[in-house]
Amino acid sequence: MTLYNQITIIGLGLIGSSIARGIKEVGGITNRIIGYDNNPEYINAINELGFVDELSPDLAHSVIGSDLVILATPVGTYSSIAKTIAQKLAPGATLSDVGSIKGAVLGMLKPHIPDEVHIIPAHPVAGTEQSGPTAGYASLFHDRWSIITPAENTDKEALNRLSKFWEMLGSNVEIMDADHHDKVLAITSHVPHLIAYNIVGTARDLEEVTKSEVIKFSAGGFRDFTRIAASNPTMWRDVFLNNKEAVLEMLGRFSEDLSALQRAIRWDDGDALYDMFVKTRQIRKQIIDAGQEDNIINFGRDLDD
Amino acid sequence: MTLYNQITIIGLGLIGSSIARGIKEVGGITNRIIGYDNNPEYINAINELGFVDELSPDLAHSVIGSDLVILATPVGTYSSIAKTIAQKLAPGATLSDVGSIKGAVLGMLKPHIPDEVHIIPAHPVAGTEQSGPTAGYASLFHDRWSIITPAENTDKEALNRLSKFWEMLGSNVEIMDADHHDKVLAITSHVPHLIAYNIVGTARDLEEVTKSEVIKFSAGGFRDFTRIAASNPTMWRDVFLNNKEAVLEMLGRFSEDLSALQRAIRWDDGDALYDMFVKTRQIRKQIIDAGQEDNIINFGRDLDD
Repeated sequence: MTLYNQITIIGLGLIGSSIARGIKEVGGITNRIIGYDNNPEYINAINELGFVDELSPDLAHSVIGSDLVILATPVGTYSSIAKTIAQKLAPGATLSDVGSIKGAVLGMLKPHIPDEVHIIPAHPVAGTEQSGPTAGYASLFHDRWSIITPAENTDKEALNRLSKFWEMLGSNVEIMDADHHDKVLAITSHVPHLIAYNIVGTARDLEEVTKSEVIKFSAGGFRDFTRIAASNPTMWRDVFLNNKEAVLEMLGRFSEDLSALQRAIRWDDGDALYDMFVKTRQIRKQIIDAGQEDNIINFGRDLDD
Repeated sequence: MTLYNQITIIGLGLIGSSIARGIKEVGGITNRIIGYDNNPEYINAINELGFVDELSPDLAHSVIGSDLVILATPVGTYSSIAKTIAQKLAPGATLSDVGSIKGAVLGMLKPHIPDEVHIIPAHPVAGTEQSGPTAGYASLFHDRWSIITPAENTDKEALNRLSKFWEMLGSNVEIMDADHHDKVLAITSHVPHLIAYNIVGTARDLEEVTKSEVIKFSAGGFRDFTRIAASNPTMWRDVFLNNKEAVLEMLGRFSEDLSALQRAIRWDDGDALYDMFVKTRQIRKQIIDAGQEDNIINFGRDLDD
């Protein structure tokens, strides 16, 4: 017996297509995957790659008969999708998502969704700078954390089944309060993305230093930031708009700290700079020790030149 | 005939030891490498690794008879080293360095160094987050830019020879005005490092979000920043103190731009966010096309899990 009888994945970009690939690779998760994507440019690739059993041409119909429906679209689309699929969802089905913000999800879905459907928001903390159905891969979630943020009254059996789903895809599962999730991710993901976008933008706009020089000498550190700043623009716009409070709070702290560093530079306070640079150095080692980063120097660049 | 008869490398950390390794690997660059390092913890490793022909116990003596002397120590040490070695430098020798700032170098060296010595500052734009003699490798400079910032009256032959030196180590060479170098590197390297140190520091100090959570969920983007924030603290302290003007100027622009993004989030201006995120996405492609970054998704993580 499979974990779910039929799964619908709405949105077959990097994350949605990786879920589908993972399900196919692992086996035992479901008998049938239905996919839906509204981007006409993706359709050919999805059909060729064959990671769904059926690519539905109709959003509402795509959820019929599924006991798990996963939204893998930018969070700004959730309300509208919920409205469209609400009446076709099977009683007892689970409606989940993969969005990078969690506090606002329940409020987007609940008004439209019948009470007999279990809404259980989730967030696999995994991804790359690439987008679209060709960018996905089955091992994307291996050894990454998937955070599930159930409401208090969530059905235990449905929650356990969703946890098992992410574990079968290779994730570790963490159950967390949605608002706490948004604070943690604001500092570990959202603000780092905003800063990366920002420094790449600042560099791009410089006139004294030409853009070709920025590109030419990017190996000094800048190129690392461009990876994150190449992430999906729609997805990230929706993240910032829907985790406003935590992002602005963390950004305030970041700016305060940056002002202190700026002041240390202006006043030649080398000790303050040195002390801070020593402390931050240890964090990377801890991340590697925790299995959240490969222990590969300089991201493996240059070594095989 | 070799390019130089004898080369002294002062400081055998990541960069100094990589130069020595490169010289050994390529051949034809010199007949003899003398090394000096004042860190007693490095001595055993240097002797075991054997990338210098002689490890000198005395800084002043280490430069005797060398026609190229390279400072590969933090720039804050330059004046003091110049004073110590000045009288032992051979007339006609070239004194160069590898520091990440260039405008201040001449002023640190010239007052101490005899006129018959050619001072030619240089900066190989290459490195990793690791430090020390065990961290170096011969291919570190392959396909990277080495920027040479000669004063106007610099001896042509000495300059050509130093250019050839870096080319033989695998670099492309760019001749640049020292002050322009400092502006370009402020945006491509110095400010990115400061920002990375800063966000890692902000995350580390949070109380609401625990440090273990920051580490656990770092794969959302944060871990990228920790690589840069693990770089050599002494070296980077000296960079910021000696490129103050350009760093503060670029930091001012960065903060202005960040305030604009912050305002866009606060006022739900999704279009402004989206437009910016689309523009920054293209920069990475250009860096990859320019050969300054490997075209490997997510820095090659996860793929072989």
